Amino acid sequence: MAVHTVASSTSSTVDLGPAAALSCRECGHRVPLGPVFACEECFGPLEVAYDFSAYDTDTLRKRIEAGPASIWRYAPLLPVPEDVADKPNLNPGWTRLVKADRLAAELGVTGGLYVKDDSGNPTHSFKDRVVAQALEAARAFGFTTLSCSSTGNLAGAVGAAAARAGLRSCVFIPHDLEQGKVVMAAVYGGDLVGIEGTYDDVNRFCSELIGDPAGEGWGFVNVNLRPYYAEGSKTLAYEICEQLGWRLPDQIVVPIASGSQLTKVDKGLRELIELGLVEDKPYKIFGAQAAGCSPVSTAFKAGHDVVRPQKPDTIAKSLAIGNPADGPYVLDIARRTGGAVEDVTDEQIVDAIKLLARTEGVFAETAGGVTVGVTRKLIENGQLDPSKTTVVLNTGDGLKTLDAVAGTGLTATIRPTLDSFREAGLA
Amino acid sequence: MAVHTVASSTSSTVDLGPAAALSCRECGHRVPLGPVFACEECFGPLEVAYDFSAYDTDTLRKRIEAGPASIWRYAPLLPVPEDVADKPNLNPGWTRLVKADRLAAELGVTGGLYVKDDSGNPTHSFKDRVVAQALEAARAFGFTTLSCSSTGNLAGAVGAAAARAGLRSCVFIPHDLEQGKVVMAAVYGGDLVGIEGTYDDVNRFCSELIGDPAGEGWGFVNVNLRPYYAEGSKTLAYEICEQLGWRLPDQIVVPIASGSQLTKVDKGLRELIELGLVEDKPYKIFGAQAAGCSPVSTAFKAGHDVVRPQKPDTIAKSLAIGNPADGPYVLDIARRTGGAVEDVTDEQIVDAIKLLARTEGVFAETAGGVTVGVTRKLIENGQLDPSKTTVVLNTGDGLKTLDAVAGTGLTATIRPTLDSFREAGLA
Repeated sequence: MAVHTVASSTSSTVDLGPAAALSCRECGHRVPLGPVFACEECFGPLEVAYDFSAYDTDTLRKRIEAGPASIWRYAPLLPVPEDVADKPNLNPGWTRLVKADRLAAELGVTGGLYVKDDSGNPTHSFKDRVVAQALEAARAFGFTTLSCSSTGNLAGAVGAAAARAGLRSCVFIPHDLEQGKVVMAAVYGGDLVGIEGTYDDVNRFCSELIGDPAGEGWGFVNVNLRPYYAEGSKTLAYEICEQLGWRLPDQIVVPIASGSQLTKVDKGLRELIELGLVEDKPYKIFGAQAAGCSPVSTAFKAGHDVVRPQKPDTIAKSLAIGNPADGPYVLDIARRTGGAVEDVTDEQIVDAIKLLARTEGVFAETAGGVTVGVTRKLIENGQLDPSKTTVVLNTGDGLKTLDAVAGTGLTATIRPTLDSFREAGLA
Repeated sequence: MAVHTVASSTSSTVDLGPAAALSCRECGHRVPLGPVFACEECFGPLEVAYDFSAYDTDTLRKRIEAGPASIWRYAPLLPVPEDVADKPNLNPGWTRLVKADRLAAELGVTGGLYVKDDSGNPTHSFKDRVVAQALEAARAFGFTTLSCSSTGNLAGAVGAAAARAGLRSCVFIPHDLEQGKVVMAAVYGGDLVGIEGTYDDVNRFCSELIGDPAGEGWGFVNVNLRPYYAEGSKTLAYEICEQLGWRLPDQIVVPIASGSQLTKVDKGLRELIELGLVEDKPYKIFGAQAAGCSPVSTAFKAGHDVVRPQKPDTIAKSLAIGNPADGPYVLDIARRTGGAVEDVTDEQIVDAIKLLARTEGVFAETAGGVTVGVTRKLIENGQLDPSKTTVVLNTGDGLKTLDAVAGTGLTATIRPTLDSFREAGLA
């Protein structure tokens, strides 16, 4: 039934908690839980379908609040076994929601501005959330190797998660990646393989490997485990609402790479409404891109339903996907909720990184510069209402993209004397 | 009465919660709370004295457990006002206590091995804990500039904390620091001043500035605010015990730079015993140094009570204090508790960083390599009992000391074909 065979488990023995099946987002066709990602009927993307029918709202809320300070407090809403918190994993999540009053003052936001700072995750990006789901799926399907194609954050997240779980990891990257990024991924001791070719070549090779006997027992977190993996982004929505006191924000600004995160944040918010954990009221979702890779923003502004691929050229490497798989879904969500998709230049990204750092002490990756920069632009052009409660996502860590702010430096150089100090005008 | 005058507050109006006075560690002389650090009677170090007499154990435990997921759950035990969590600060702490079963297996630990991973703090080192205390003291004393001398982690922690609080920051560093470290500190937008000279020159200059009118209104976190600052390290002890289910560990391995952290971890454990929050039972504290800067380890092994200064030469820069102020206290604690002080070579530090990364997915700073490496050595030489519950501190993040593992790299480079993959022996 499934496109690929399941290594050592069938749906009847797979325990992924409330996950009941995989369901096609396009045609609704359902298949048993397994390491598959495309609908056999229409080739649409598969996503996890749940059975939440047994949950009572108050009991669920109390269970979550009594849970661990990690994404596993939401285990009843994720495709993971009930005892997931007891298994060796990185326990990501429950990152700080920073009330950003000084940033709000600079941007003119009066309705409450928050930064969800995912740099506090174990490998310092939101990728730990999604990889943690893929890891549980890999265990459930009997996979022994965790794998992915990556150009950065994901390589480290997969290497670290596999190390902690005692699984082999084998991560594929373009062979000419910067040395710093190679070190961050290689330190976890898994196999790190450089592919002679572009990132597209790396992806193509991974797809080939999945269909080959050589790839048997391999879970590619963002390919054959993608339906599970993607669910991890729902936890951003859960945490934001719980940290706001079980309230929906009015507006939320999410970065767009493949677009998956934005669609799952929306899914998470809708689930909380359906489960009665938050009040049912409108919210707006805004997408943020870099101008140098803005296929979704371009389509949004042109009123298109489809996304025309672009060749990325931006410092926001973690968002540089020129042909985003979930682009059409993002357009739909932005329009349905009354949001928008906007983009900012590399210069605006750098300015926004510095603005966030100097107002709130949060040093964001370039992707965080994109969301903060887009928030500013959306306020200026009147699309984002500054009188409403607004949450901006920072999905990564500035330490990983130091080059973006390499121009930052010393205010002054002085001799170690008070006279020299006074001459420099620092007193 | 105080050595320096208090900017805009006197002890009677200073609200630092349960902090009652400053008390000399040598002679016990007490002075009112203020920005002073040395005893006017004997020049011994001042530390915070508390009034915990009003606390009932059960009420206190419940209050802590109901508190925020940060160090502020322990506000009743820290020199901070009761409403500290509502003030703009980085809310550090409540970092992961990783049950390190795979590392335990490699080291032969059977009694339970845990890594307290402080890389999850906002600026990714334990310095956020101590700076957060200094920030509250600075606010209480009416200081408007937060300052420090630093060669790394502290500069970023101070810059970020001041930015978030809306205070000016002015951080002094040697002018020839590596560009990466300069960027990490400069990004928060405060003044970052390069001093033409060594780190010793920087420190000497800071002491001069404190005594000069030009330094009026300036809080140097690790000089005139040091008594408050140092208390932040107690929270490591509190968190470890609470995360173990309000149990004391049997053994704990702490890195030594100035030695302050180790003495405050001991103070925190003793407070928990005195408050009845944990059972009164013996525990052993072990100190960890790099061989290239091992004044305390050398003194311990020689049976000395005093510490002879060394000129540091090690990759563990964050521990490279050749003349550690709290060295004698560390020796006393290690001996009193039945612990030890040990050191490891740079090669052993690198091996330990890789060991921790490949077994637990935790990428530690060189200081974490020191504690893990020393733990291994202490087990090998029989000083640490592998059948007892042991906690190892990782106080910083590997992303900040990438050079230490720069040799780590690709397992293989292949063409994007299955044949090339098979030839490389990766299947």
